Amino acid sequence: MIDDVVIIGGGAIGCAAALALARRGVQVRLIERAHLGAEASSAAAGILGAYAEAHDAGPLTQLCLRSLALYAAWSAGLVEETGIDVGYRPSGSMRVSFAKGPLDEQAHATFGVFGDDERALDAAAAHALEPQLAPDIAGALLFAKDCRIDPPALVSALAAAMERAGVVVMTGGVARITIENGRATGVTLESGDAVRAGTVVLTAGAWSLLEGSGITPLELWPIRGQMAELRTAGHVLGHVVFGPAAYLSPRDDGRLIVGSTQERAGYRKAVTVRGLRGLLDGAVALVPGLADAEIARTWSGLRPATPDGGPLLGAGATRGLVIATGHFRNGILLAPITGEVVTALVLGNAPPVDLGPFGVQRFARG
Amino acid sequence: MIDDVVIIGGGAIGCAAALALARRGVQVRLIERAHLGAEASSAAAGILGAYAEAHDAGPLTQLCLRSLALYAAWSAGLVEETGIDVGYRPSGSMRVSFAKGPLDEQAHATFGVFGDDERALDAAAAHALEPQLAPDIAGALLFAKDCRIDPPALVSALAAAMERAGVVVMTGGVARITIENGRATGVTLESGDAVRAGTVVLTAGAWSLLEGSGITPLELWPIRGQMAELRTAGHVLGHVVFGPAAYLSPRDDGRLIVGSTQERAGYRKAVTVRGLRGLLDGAVALVPGLADAEIARTWSGLRPATPDGGPLLGAGATRGLVIATGHFRNGILLAPITGEVVTALVLGNAPPVDLGPFGVQRFARG
Repeated sequence: MIDDVVIIGGGAIGCAAALALARRGVQVRLIERAHLGAEASSAAAGILGAYAEAHDAGPLTQLCLRSLALYAAWSAGLVEETGIDVGYRPSGSMRVSFAKGPLDEQAHATFGVFGDDERALDAAAAHALEPQLAPDIAGALLFAKDCRIDPPALVSALAAAMERAGVVVMTGGVARITIENGRATGVTLESGDAVRAGTVVLTAGAWSLLEGSGITPLELWPIRGQMAELRTAGHVLGHVVFGPAAYLSPRDDGRLIVGSTQERAGYRKAVTVRGLRGLLDGAVALVPGLADAEIARTWSGLRPATPDGGPLLGAGATRGLVIATGHFRNGILLAPITGEVVTALVLGNAPPVDLGPFGVQRFARG
Repeated sequence: MIDDVVIIGGGAIGCAAALALARRGVQVRLIERAHLGAEASSAAAGILGAYAEAHDAGPLTQLCLRSLALYAAWSAGLVEETGIDVGYRPSGSMRVSFAKGPLDEQAHATFGVFGDDERALDAAAAHALEPQLAPDIAGALLFAKDCRIDPPALVSALAAAMERAGVVVMTGGVARITIENGRATGVTLESGDAVRAGTVVLTAGAWSLLEGSGITPLELWPIRGQMAELRTAGHVLGHVVFGPAAYLSPRDDGRLIVGSTQERAGYRKAVTVRGLRGLLDGAVALVPGLADAEIARTWSGLRPATPDGGPLLGAGATRGLVIATGHFRNGILLAPITGEVVTALVLGNAPPVDLGPFGVQRFARG
């Protein structure tokens, strides 16, 4: 039997899950407090950096690679269906090092893991690919298969596709998950209204610590990321570029997203002097010509972090509850695979990946 | 005979002139392209720094001191009449030096000019007045008579006072000053409408290069100033503080205005990476605790500069035209005295100060 589903939270994860379920014929209602993508999803830089952001070859990296592999077809389907260019570009990424001798620490940690999908460049080779990089770089690792996307455009396309697929988007704050006889049966809104459903899917990012979720503040907390959008006169970069103090995610129209701080600041969104100085310093260190760029916009977002950096993905402690949150820096990247995982869990099918490493109860085990 | 007057430009200068004229019974129409204070006047930091900003004891400094002396009564009158707190505070200002030995260059240039109105402080004395100043400052000059004001509040109060005084504010762009038989007789709007008046007063700041004004781009040009508003948790400073790379103008509510770049960038308003980095670096160098401050807002304004830094103030080349523009960094400070000067010129009275050094034709003489 295919239940109807209520999804809590309309970020990229919630929207991807809603769309995947609706495409399988499930009746989906999605509840969003503000508007779709209002929080971390539209704050994100849109780096699909499964390679460049890997710390090891473990399960999280494998999950990211799986999702990256889905992205080309998934995003092309959205573009075709909605006519919205989501900015998916197989641009590749570079991790630039300034150290005189060997490449940087993270480069060391991962170098060799990806075989031919990773290539060490000396400064001349890096400059040949990206001439605006600083003259004093030592070299770079090139990850040719990393990509980028434009998150606000992605959210718009997801919204349009959900509407076509019959997803009902409701605006409202969720007060708690309703539990009856040990089973999640819906949600209670802050307005007092109750929404009943066969399955509840929790995709509320940093706002997932709801009564009934079973998630504690020790397992999930917000990490603030400050960002800036620069406007440049012409082409500056093609690749996503990571440096020691900032990353740069270009757009085709000359815009360039600079990120990001990682701060524990509770739920206080703010751009601070320290944060923005660090980003701008880091950006100019990578590309000196950016000193002349215009600062078009600054903002911050709250990413849902977990103790091991991996998402909380799987069946909740309560029957009828599916959890897909805690995606930290990888929410945009992991949206396609998460949509597939949630769909499998709701329909009672085998999930497409081993969820053991991402189990919701994993931090309680020890 | 008291003519009716049309004033071009509703910044602090235009509003001050309009109010002064209307209070003398003159019928005033003020034409503003956007809204009152839309440009440099609301972009300003509101530093009434006649002492701290002096480069010498010449005529411009004397004009600034005259206007500063008017400010307490002028602003109190506005507050009383309108109920709007314009943020006038006799806070004093400090010019902080980091040089190990003597104080900074500008301090040298002016030190001794102001007698008892200027006092040299060693680092301990400066910290006693402003404990949040950086530990590594060498000392400061204290200018106890400098003040500060909140420019957007000032513009609001001027607007309310003008309305009470019967000034008619018209919204529209001015295409040119109408000249008939060698006399200014009004203005022609971009809409094609004509506004006739006995006297035309040009107070359009960086937008004063109008046909019929006689002002050339060699005599007046825009200098961009980038600014940031920081939000702090509590009291940071009382005095306005000038440092080598930035100044800080506090507000009672914990806000703090940081300024300012001085750039030739045509009429392109923008906040740039270089500009904002410089301001933030300069602010943190003065008050290290500002690293934790929130950046509430950034913006830029276009100040009308002239070859010698002084305003263009006096009768225009054409009869019936009075010019009061080019106030550069001193528009807010010079508003009260400029209102008096314009009123005297319109009414045919002797101006309250010698206008020779500020004459509109002074750059053509050589």
